[in-house]
Amino acid sequence: MSCRIALGLSYSGQHYSGWQSQSSGNTVQDQLEAALARFSADGKARISTICAGRTDAGVHGLMQVVHFDAPVRRPDSAWVRGTNRFLPPDIAVQWARAVPQGFHARASATARRYAYVLLQSPVRPSVETGRVGWVFRPLDGDAMSQAARMLEGEHDFSSFRAAACQALSPVKTLQPIRITRRGAAAAESCYWHFEFESNAFLHHMIRNIMGCLIAVGQGSQPPEWIAEVLQARSRKMAAPTFSPDGLYFLGPVYAQSWGLPARTAAYDWLP
Amino acid sequence: MSCRIALGLSYSGQHYSGWQSQSSGNTVQDQLEAALARFSADGKARISTICAGRTDAGVHGLMQVVHFDAPVRRPDSAWVRGTNRFLPPDIAVQWARAVPQGFHARASATARRYAYVLLQSPVRPSVETGRVGWVFRPLDGDAMSQAARMLEGEHDFSSFRAAACQALSPVKTLQPIRITRRGAAAAESCYWHFEFESNAFLHHMIRNIMGCLIAVGQGSQPPEWIAEVLQARSRKMAAPTFSPDGLYFLGPVYAQSWGLPARTAAYDWLP
Repeated sequence: MSCRIALGLSYSGQHYSGWQSQSSGNTVQDQLEAALARFSADGKARISTICAGRTDAGVHGLMQVVHFDAPVRRPDSAWVRGTNRFLPPDIAVQWARAVPQGFHARASATARRYAYVLLQSPVRPSVETGRVGWVFRPLDGDAMSQAARMLEGEHDFSSFRAAACQALSPVKTLQPIRITRRGAAAAESCYWHFEFESNAFLHHMIRNIMGCLIAVGQGSQPPEWIAEVLQARSRKMAAPTFSPDGLYFLGPVYAQSWGLPARTAAYDWLP
Repeated sequence: MSCRIALGLSYSGQHYSGWQSQSSGNTVQDQLEAALARFSADGKARISTICAGRTDAGVHGLMQVVHFDAPVRRPDSAWVRGTNRFLPPDIAVQWARAVPQGFHARASATARRYAYVLLQSPVRPSVETGRVGWVFRPLDGDAMSQAARMLEGEHDFSSFRAAACQALSPVKTLQPIRITRRGAAAAESCYWHFEFESNAFLHHMIRNIMGCLIAVGQGSQPPEWIAEVLQARSRKMAAPTFSPDGLYFLGPVYAQSWGLPARTAAYDWLP
C-alpha cells in the first residue's frame, strides 16, 4: 500500500520556468519529481506531486508544500536527505512527514502567505538581481498603506486577475497587507517588504496589486484610485503586472491537526 | 588630458572567475572594462582599471572601488548610467567621482571591510545558494568570539595565507571580528554574520580564518588553538580554506579629503 508524504520545499525561481511541469522539463516540479523518482524508485516509476500554490516563472518558494503517494516506505528524514542528493543547488527539501490519505497540499490549505521584496534605488539591482523588484523613484509609504487598506477583506478581485486564471471564483478574502521599509547597502536606497495573506490568490493577483500600489507610491495615482480599480472588476483599469523577481511564496497554512511544521517561512532575512 | 575617475561597484561573484582579468574574459574586471570602453570609446580603446581589493572566484562585492583614466570627459552621473547600460544584470556601478591624479584605488585605501554570511542548518542552502557559506552542525558563538579575540591587533598572519599570495608582508592589523547570530526561514536554522576589518588582507586570509573559527564553533578545537595556529606562522596548522560563497567585500576606507562617498556598504540586509 502506498503512503502519502508531505514535503516542505525551498527554491529560487530565478532559473526555472515556474512550478508547473512542462515538456521543456525546466520547472521546479520537474526537478522535484525526477529527484523523488531517482531516490525512491531508481528513476523507473513516475512520482506525481501536487503543490499548495503554483508559482510563476521567476517567483521563489520559501516553504512550498507538496504531497505525493510514495511507492516505498522510508523514514521522514530519509526523504529529506535522499531527495536533496538529486536536486539542483537552488532547490532543497526542508522537511518531510507521512500524512493521512485525506491530506491534500492544495485543498487542505486554509490560507497562503507571500512576501514581495522591492529595491528602491537610483541604480538597478546587481548583487540581488532576480531576487528583488526594482523602482528608481522614491515611494510614499503612507500613500501605499492607505491604498492597501482598500483591498482588505472579501472582494471580487477580477481587476487583478490574469486572463489565463483557472480559479473557480474571483472572490477572495485578503488580510491586511503589511508594508515595511528597510535599509540597503547604498545610502540613497532602501528595500520595501510587502506581506500578503489570503485564503487563496488569483493568477498574477499579487503582481497586479504590486503594480497598482507602486503607481500610488510614486504619485501617479491617488490612494482612492485603488478602490475604483477594485470596483471596476476589469483588468483594463489596473496597472501593468509587476516583475516576478521580488515575489516569495512563504507557504500555505494548514489545520494543526495534520501535524505539519506549524509556521510559514520567516522572511525578515531577505533583503 | 585624461581625467581620473573613481567608481563604486556592486556585483554578485557567483557566476564569475573572480575580479582579476583573465584570457577567458569571464571576470568582473573584464566585464567592467568592456562596458567602460563601449560607453566612452565605442569599444575602440582599452580602459584599464585598478581595484581596491581583488576578490576570488565566487566572492561578492558590495562596494568595490576602482579607478581609471578616462579618454573622455563626462558628468559623474553619466558614468553611472552609461556604464550600467553595458554591464550584465549582476554587476552595477553605484556612484562615480572625478578624482585627483594622486588617487589610487588600492594604494590610497587605509582599510578594507568584509562580511561573511554563514547558514547553519541541517539542510543545505537553496534559495540562497552561492550567497552563503553552510555548516550543518550548530555553532557555539561564545567559543568563536573567544577564539576571534586572539587574532585582534598586529600579527604575522602567515598561517592564514595562501601559497599564491603576493603581499609584500604577512603582517597585518586586524580589528575586532564582530560575530552576530540571526534568524532564518526554517525553525531549526540560523544565519551567522562575521565582520572583518584590517589595513589589508592576505590572499584567502578571511576564508582561512573562517575555517578555523568554524572548527572552534563546532567543538573540533578549543578556542586557544587559534593562538597556536597564529603563532606557528605555517599554513599547515590551520583548517582548510572555507567556501567563497558567503564572502562579501563591503569596501575600502579612504581619507575623507578624497571626497568619495564616506561609508562602506551596509550589509544587515544580507541573509
